[in-house]
Amino acid sequence: MKKYNNGEFRLKDAGNYFEVYGWVNKRRDMGGVIFVDLRDRSGMLQIVLNRDFLKDDFKVAETLKNEYCIKAYGKLEKRGEGLANPNLSTGEVELIVENLEILSECDILPFNVYEDTNINENISLKYRYLDLRKERLQNTIMTRHKITSSIREYLNGEGFLDIETPILCKSTPEGARDYIVPSRINKGSFYALPQSPQICKQLLMVSGFEKYYQIAKCFRDEDLRADRQPEFTQIDMEMSFVTEEDVMNNTENLLKKVVKDVKGIDVPDFPRMPYKEAMERYGSDKPDTRFEMELLDLTEILRGTQMNVFNNVISNGGIVKCLIVKNNGDKYSRSDVEHLTDFVKIYGAKGLAWLKYDNDTFNGVIAKNLEEEKLELMRTTYNITNNDLVLIVADTPKIVYAALGALRLKLAKELNLIDENKLNFLWVTEFPMYEYSESEKRYKSCHHPFTMPISVDKLSDYENCTAKAYDIVLNGYEVGGGSIRIHDPKVQAIVFKELGISDEEAQKKFGFFIDAFKFGAPPHGGLALGLDRLVMILCGTENIKDVIAFPKTQSASDLMMEAPSEVTLEQLKELGIKIDVEEDNE
Amino acid sequence: MKKYNNGEFRLKDAGNYFEVYGWVNKRRDMGGVIFVDLRDRSGMLQIVLNRDFLKDDFKVAETLKNEYCIKAYGKLEKRGEGLANPNLSTGEVELIVENLEILSECDILPFNVYEDTNINENISLKYRYLDLRKERLQNTIMTRHKITSSIREYLNGEGFLDIETPILCKSTPEGARDYIVPSRINKGSFYALPQSPQICKQLLMVSGFEKYYQIAKCFRDEDLRADRQPEFTQIDMEMSFVTEEDVMNNTENLLKKVVKDVKGIDVPDFPRMPYKEAMERYGSDKPDTRFEMELLDLTEILRGTQMNVFNNVISNGGIVKCLIVKNNGDKYSRSDVEHLTDFVKIYGAKGLAWLKYDNDTFNGVIAKNLEEEKLELMRTTYNITNNDLVLIVADTPKIVYAALGALRLKLAKELNLIDENKLNFLWVTEFPMYEYSESEKRYKSCHHPFTMPISVDKLSDYENCTAKAYDIVLNGYEVGGGSIRIHDPKVQAIVFKELGISDEEAQKKFGFFIDAFKFGAPPHGGLALGLDRLVMILCGTENIKDVIAFPKTQSASDLMMEAPSEVTLEQLKELGIKIDVEEDNE
Repeated sequence: MKKYNNGEFRLKDAGNYFEVYGWVNKRRDMGGVIFVDLRDRSGMLQIVLNRDFLKDDFKVAETLKNEYCIKAYGKLEKRGEGLANPNLSTGEVELIVENLEILSECDILPFNVYEDTNINENISLKYRYLDLRKERLQNTIMTRHKITSSIREYLNGEGFLDIETPILCKSTPEGARDYIVPSRINKGSFYALPQSPQICKQLLMVSGFEKYYQIAKCFRDEDLRADRQPEFTQIDMEMSFVTEEDVMNNTENLLKKVVKDVKGIDVPDFPRMPYKEAMERYGSDKPDTRFEMELLDLTEILRGTQMNVFNNVISNGGIVKCLIVKNNGDKYSRSDVEHLTDFVKIYGAKGLAWLKYDNDTFNGVIAKNLEEEKLELMRTTYNITNNDLVLIVADTPKIVYAALGALRLKLAKELNLIDENKLNFLWVTEFPMYEYSESEKRYKSCHHPFTMPISVDKLSDYENCTAKAYDIVLNGYEVGGGSIRIHDPKVQAIVFKELGISDEEAQKKFGFFIDAFKFGAPPHGGLALGLDRLVMILCGTENIKDVIAFPKTQSASDLMMEAPSEVTLEQLKELGIKIDVEEDNE
Repeated sequence: MKKYNNGEFRLKDAGNYFEVYGWVNKRRDMGGVIFVDLRDRSGMLQIVLNRDFLKDDFKVAETLKNEYCIKAYGKLEKRGEGLANPNLSTGEVELIVENLEILSECDILPFNVYEDTNINENISLKYRYLDLRKERLQNTIMTRHKITSSIREYLNGEGFLDIETPILCKSTPEGARDYIVPSRINKGSFYALPQSPQICKQLLMVSGFEKYYQIAKCFRDEDLRADRQPEFTQIDMEMSFVTEEDVMNNTENLLKKVVKDVKGIDVPDFPRMPYKEAMERYGSDKPDTRFEMELLDLTEILRGTQMNVFNNVISNGGIVKCLIVKNNGDKYSRSDVEHLTDFVKIYGAKGLAWLKYDNDTFNGVIAKNLEEEKLELMRTTYNITNNDLVLIVADTPKIVYAALGALRLKLAKELNLIDENKLNFLWVTEFPMYEYSESEKRYKSCHHPFTMPISVDKLSDYENCTAKAYDIVLNGYEVGGGSIRIHDPKVQAIVFKELGISDEEAQKKFGFFIDAFKFGAPPHGGLALGLDRLVMILCGTENIKDVIAFPKTQSASDLMMEAPSEVTLEQLKELGIKIDVEEDNE
């Protein structure tokens, strides 16, 4: 049978007979004539059910309800004068039906499909198969397909090999967030679902495949944020005999092609910014560069001020930074600013000092206490003009960046500073090799312990050692990250030592992986892109569930299948496990 | 850096300077000159390490061992007169090296990489990353990539959407072979890894996506045969508004393209054979049609014979069938035939009667006891000639088919009747709707309970009801199967009733799935191909591990990662489970 795309009928097709299939999106009953918008995945065609043409089948037509699945045969005709619908791609034509058949009836719907109203998410997820009929979700899922096709086309063309790595893997000792799978054959043992194919893809380089990619399912059992899912998809790449430049260029060309294929836009070359600069200017390692309002430094200006709140911080090695809300000072009342103060406290700031500049004068508590010449220096340095609001945080760099970085985004949303049509890519480079873990009171790998340092000689300089690691940022989201890996066992040994990992521990944790590098491992590096997030941004949605056919809730449940669920005692017995839940479990 | 493919250098490139990378496949030390076969994934290039050109680097050259990873710079030159190697694609040229750098040294290897000798599989799997360097495995993995690329290209072109379905799914009550995953958030509950995306792909049809595909990981925790893996990959397809014809044509065109792209062969249209005929002629629902030697019926010829061994079987509704080993009777001694008798007993046959025809006479025990005219009728009916061997089994059809079907394959291998260059596709159609389970003493679905019967009126006729189900067979392997699904809840209710599944049970087992069909489900059907097996056949290997980068053993272990493995008590505690293994576990 030949299935036409309902959304593709045009005036040139008029005069011919067609058999069409689809769903009753909406029907309008005019007595002897019923108009039906017949929907399929390609769009909508108006079909006309006329008593005169349908004869006996008109009785069938009268029983039609929304979401009935039907087959109709008839002649495509130009719509009458003035009856064309310019909002519909097929608006100039309609099918005059002569035969009608109901393929499938539809019960009372839990919600309308033809309109995208806000319904309880629990209901829409339970009936996900109906929610997916909505135009918005049909579009995101189709766009996702377009994006993965475009990615594959590019990578295949560049000689990358799509190689599958296992889902039933080994749990790593850091694997606190591993999903594990009991083994029936080896009772008491467990597989782990991979958090990423990192180990396998590097081994594929050791095997000499040179260019690998995979659109890979990954799993992380962590408490979920709005844009996280327990299973997520990664565009995973690895290349041998490459520098950072090669990996970044390859990724950049890939993303340019994807945006061109999906949005028809030519993206300019991606700017690059070292991690340190990104933190200083945007208070973030994934800055949204679609708007300015950068973090401005006041440390030097305020050094030696009589105001202890600043001077003490500076004397103790802290910094003072501000955001200047240009020409929007009047939008923020004193109580609004208090709300902003509460907001920055979430990020550990002790307070938010502020200044308003109006009628060529600084106002606010600070203005009274701060030296005249410091105020004047601020004004001239940062070109502060009337109706500007200056918001200041003084603290350790970490807190200042976190607080002002978050505040910057909040203000941009409130003030509508973001051009939603922009796609601002940015490379953030030269990530630190280590980061200090407050909870463990020690330095840990910032990326992972297989990341190549920019200079091996600096490995003992925890605060300043940088890595050949790079993130790709899009509109303030980290959409991917990667690094050049260590391929030399001697360098790896030094890194483990610096991280406080003993030889025995390293062997136990990564034994087979470390061993592999003894057998002529090539220099290599790679990158992984978060597919879900990339699709999300390119589809212009902020809800990750919109781009996944069957997503899970924030409590990692699938409301449609009702998973996870109980299993039988026999199943557990055969797997050699039993349930051991304490009273106070959720 | 520009990485050339070592295997692609040709005479036309001679005279130019190149930087090349790769592994020392083999080296020949001639004193002041060392020849190295430099391997990468594209092939091999001979590089010449000459003391005169290398100067100080020659010391480095002298330290080279097999599988060192190196970088070499020099001039590509035509090899000297008579020194070209016709077995190498780059055999006319060689690189005269002027700079040499060792990128990575290689420890003592557990086995040679340059030769594909038979090594202990446990060793090769433990060092899988080295085994994968071998030409044979490089080729299978690259062919797999080519096959999946070809598949995607075809399906994308036909308007199929690649849609991901979840890996963390719900355990079904039949899920005895499900891998399950304990949930941390919902302690005491479990996800299951999907045995196939069947449920989800049908729901995608309910959602109106019309054409779906996915190259999907599937999981089955069963005792493994040689060509099975606990995780395997399926080319999964589903289409709406289609007939069997549409699904089969689409699959056929897909497979033709794949074979053309990968082997350069134009496969003719696939023959079709109903299940019943396949069983009768080949004793198998996946006949290897690369050779003849079909099962021939003797039931009518032997009806009423004085030989009770046949007559009793026939009177009781059994059948008698034979294989005729043409012109090879002399290859089977009496004791060889006894071995064949032992073989058919594995399949439940009580014995194997035999006749030899030689010097225009039948020989053997049977020949003495069987009526002359029956022998003569056999001879003329099946054109038995000198040096033919007739092997006969009399039993229930089930046993006769199983025994002779297996014997047919065994004989073909022994007698070398199979042309290994052939690719014989075959559609087996009209599968039975039900099959009788001896263990459960009841009829079960042959395919799955959502399969559409050919005639709804026949649903109560357990023995004769056939289904809109089809398998695709290649060289005697089932490489895929599918069906038209039931989209009408009323038909589904009848099928459940016939299968003895109560409404409550159906609701409990498939609740959300059955519900979905109440909301205007389109007619639909689909098919899944086993990717691993398809690649295996197209690569000409009989070992499924050859086509999987990181395969598992028959005890479902990954010897490289050492998975499955122990996990910590904290991990188990957080998941709300504990190990409960009895003494007698393996």
